[in-house]
Amino acid sequence: MTKFQTTRGMRDFAPEQMRKKQFIEDTCREVFELYGFQPLQTPAVEDFDLLAAKGSAGEAIKEEIYYFRDKSDRGLGLRFDFTVPLARFVASNPQLAKPFKRYQIGQVWRYDKPGKGRYREFTQADIDIVGTASMYADAEILACAAEVCKRLGLDFYIKLNNRKFLEELAETCSVPKDKIVDCFRSLDKLAKIDRAGVEAELKQKKIPAKILDVVEENNFEKAAKLVGEKSEGLKELRELLQILQKFGIGKCVKIDLSLCRGLEYYTGPVFEIDVLGTSVGGGGRFDKLISVYGGPDTPATGISFGVDRLLDYLETKLPARSTTKVFVFAVNEKLSDKALEICQNLRKLGINAECDLLKRGISKNLDYASKQKIPFCAIVGEQELAKNGLKLKDMESGKEQMVKLNELEKLKGVVK
Amino acid sequence: MTKFQTTRGMRDFAPEQMRKKQFIEDTCREVFELYGFQPLQTPAVEDFDLLAAKGSAGEAIKEEIYYFRDKSDRGLGLRFDFTVPLARFVASNPQLAKPFKRYQIGQVWRYDKPGKGRYREFTQADIDIVGTASMYADAEILACAAEVCKRLGLDFYIKLNNRKFLEELAETCSVPKDKIVDCFRSLDKLAKIDRAGVEAELKQKKIPAKILDVVEENNFEKAAKLVGEKSEGLKELRELLQILQKFGIGKCVKIDLSLCRGLEYYTGPVFEIDVLGTSVGGGGRFDKLISVYGGPDTPATGISFGVDRLLDYLETKLPARSTTKVFVFAVNEKLSDKALEICQNLRKLGINAECDLLKRGISKNLDYASKQKIPFCAIVGEQELAKNGLKLKDMESGKEQMVKLNELEKLKGVVK
Repeated sequence: MTKFQTTRGMRDFAPEQMRKKQFIEDTCREVFELYGFQPLQTPAVEDFDLLAAKGSAGEAIKEEIYYFRDKSDRGLGLRFDFTVPLARFVASNPQLAKPFKRYQIGQVWRYDKPGKGRYREFTQADIDIVGTASMYADAEILACAAEVCKRLGLDFYIKLNNRKFLEELAETCSVPKDKIVDCFRSLDKLAKIDRAGVEAELKQKKIPAKILDVVEENNFEKAAKLVGEKSEGLKELRELLQILQKFGIGKCVKIDLSLCRGLEYYTGPVFEIDVLGTSVGGGGRFDKLISVYGGPDTPATGISFGVDRLLDYLETKLPARSTTKVFVFAVNEKLSDKALEICQNLRKLGINAECDLLKRGISKNLDYASKQKIPFCAIVGEQELAKNGLKLKDMESGKEQMVKLNELEKLKGVVK
Repeated sequence: MTKFQTTRGMRDFAPEQMRKKQFIEDTCREVFELYGFQPLQTPAVEDFDLLAAKGSAGEAIKEEIYYFRDKSDRGLGLRFDFTVPLARFVASNPQLAKPFKRYQIGQVWRYDKPGKGRYREFTQADIDIVGTASMYADAEILACAAEVCKRLGLDFYIKLNNRKFLEELAETCSVPKDKIVDCFRSLDKLAKIDRAGVEAELKQKKIPAKILDVVEENNFEKAAKLVGEKSEGLKELRELLQILQKFGIGKCVKIDLSLCRGLEYYTGPVFEIDVLGTSVGGGGRFDKLISVYGGPDTPATGISFGVDRLLDYLETKLPARSTTKVFVFAVNEKLSDKALEICQNLRKLGINAECDLLKRGISKNLDYASKQKIPFCAIVGEQELAKNGLKLKDMESGKEQMVKLNELEKLKGVVK
């Protein structure tokens, strides 16, 4: 008999870890709905032609995803993000009222080299606003994202840049037009490799290093002067900064001229959420993508949280407690049916409860509750029952109290 | 430019439908946690050797699942249920405290012929109790499942049978031991094809038809006499029926001797949830499965809800309302920043709100809110603002009322 493992690069989330992951996902969903985003679910599997469309990820994506052929020899792949499926959904549902504000939380897959914090299956939480070119949409995306970060207690700020502005900046720095995308790919590595590395890359690509000086200096007003006030990217950036004040999150945002975001499809503002040097999410405006998928020209913007990144950061900070509030057990087998009855009564009151099904002894039961991180035990014994009550043990403090069986409702306040 | 569709047999859930699906999933999760089940998440992709293990689904499963080889030529497959991954998880984590009560809600995939109500991607909601052979565990599984059904307002009952009992019954009806599994496969079709069809199948397999008479008559006491009171299956059935009374769900359960459940791995009680002739879930005891995956002998039992089946049934019955409670807009562009400010204040109060980002006219905004099924509009106009208020319109009744801006908190009660 062999033992089996999870497949390479993927992992199980055991209950304690999963409760924390759910807390993060629940927080995302709650804030997304607070901001008026609605849920959309698209399939995990998509036609390969969709995933590899020209103008989106392209054929090269095949090497980076789970690609396979089904039994009718159709090329398929596991989704690698939620943006491509969203673009498909919007393109093929032209009747959708606009703006279309949707969220999607779930798994995506990439055939990446597994490593610390890098998984082949990971969870994303995305919001997007489709159908308006207004900077108010980008601002709302960032306000919503900032609220998620605040509720998760993150020490965060949002890096902001604009692809149009960056393109204009590159032009003034004599980057040839046909090398701009290539140039951005190198600049994007500034946070990962050092300046010398990026400089070498640019040299190899025959791109003048001046753009590197400008983005590294990160002096917004100086850069603004370089491109001139007529620049559309500059106008967008200034407008967005102003609206962010109205949303009350101006202080959470910093311009970062080196921020490019790798993907080719971004067309305007780009953003990234930074938690102590680690990116836990990012996104931007993609006004051309929906037409790539056969829809009419439809502007759109959005952001994506990496839930695994958030979990890695928050795991030691979030409480480990079980969602089960009370573990009920009897001190002897004769009383086990009474314990079951009490457990059912707790559940009727809406209190998450578990009952000893194995009719084990007191110490084994206490040990089990403690291992499961259940905060309270309700112990059903002869003496207490004679007084029509039970013994409630706080597993953290060790304190015990009597609770009358006809006053179980009071437990709601105690075990919260 | 081509339009793209979802891949064959899979579907999108647009917001209105997705909200209903989430309501079902949320109800499952709430009740599962009420009963002390804890969340587990396993990957969508598993090694093919795991999915096709002998004693579980076997090599033949290859034809029924999404099977593929990754770039290192490793055989992989999309999970087709949550029971196999659970067995793997338990087998490879022997340190887990028992009983291990876990739930998992998510997608599974089968390469089935697509048809009405049959999808290649579908959502399951599973609970299982691992580590006890006690019929109390089976009873708790059924009590929890019944509570889910009650909260969803389903007209349901639970079909109950026992594989041991059925095997013993088959023996007394002269079914050869080596043909029992084959016999069950035919009996299982009684609900789908007519008696004559099943009879023909049995004849072809050279199995005497008597077992068919017995299960079709479905007279439990008569069948009990046939196997005799020493029968282990009968003992289990009687004990379980008795415990179900203690859980207060005796009346929801009916013995159905024709219920086999196709899968080979069931070893004791089997159950199915019937809603007006349609199965919306099922399960049973699988005491041998975890050892198949290399774990020690570990008894286990569980049930699985088909969320798509539940949705098909409930879709027209559940409310279509948006989770967004209030759509805020200004009557002219000059007031749009005020509208945004009010919207942010509503969000601060915890009221799900959306603000007009497109600065459209009144009728377009009302039309949008109505299409999105948002129940209330908060209209920001000069006259009302002069009196430090806004106009709240109930989109269903059409009624309007003034709300003071310093009393927005009152809206919490109104828009619930």
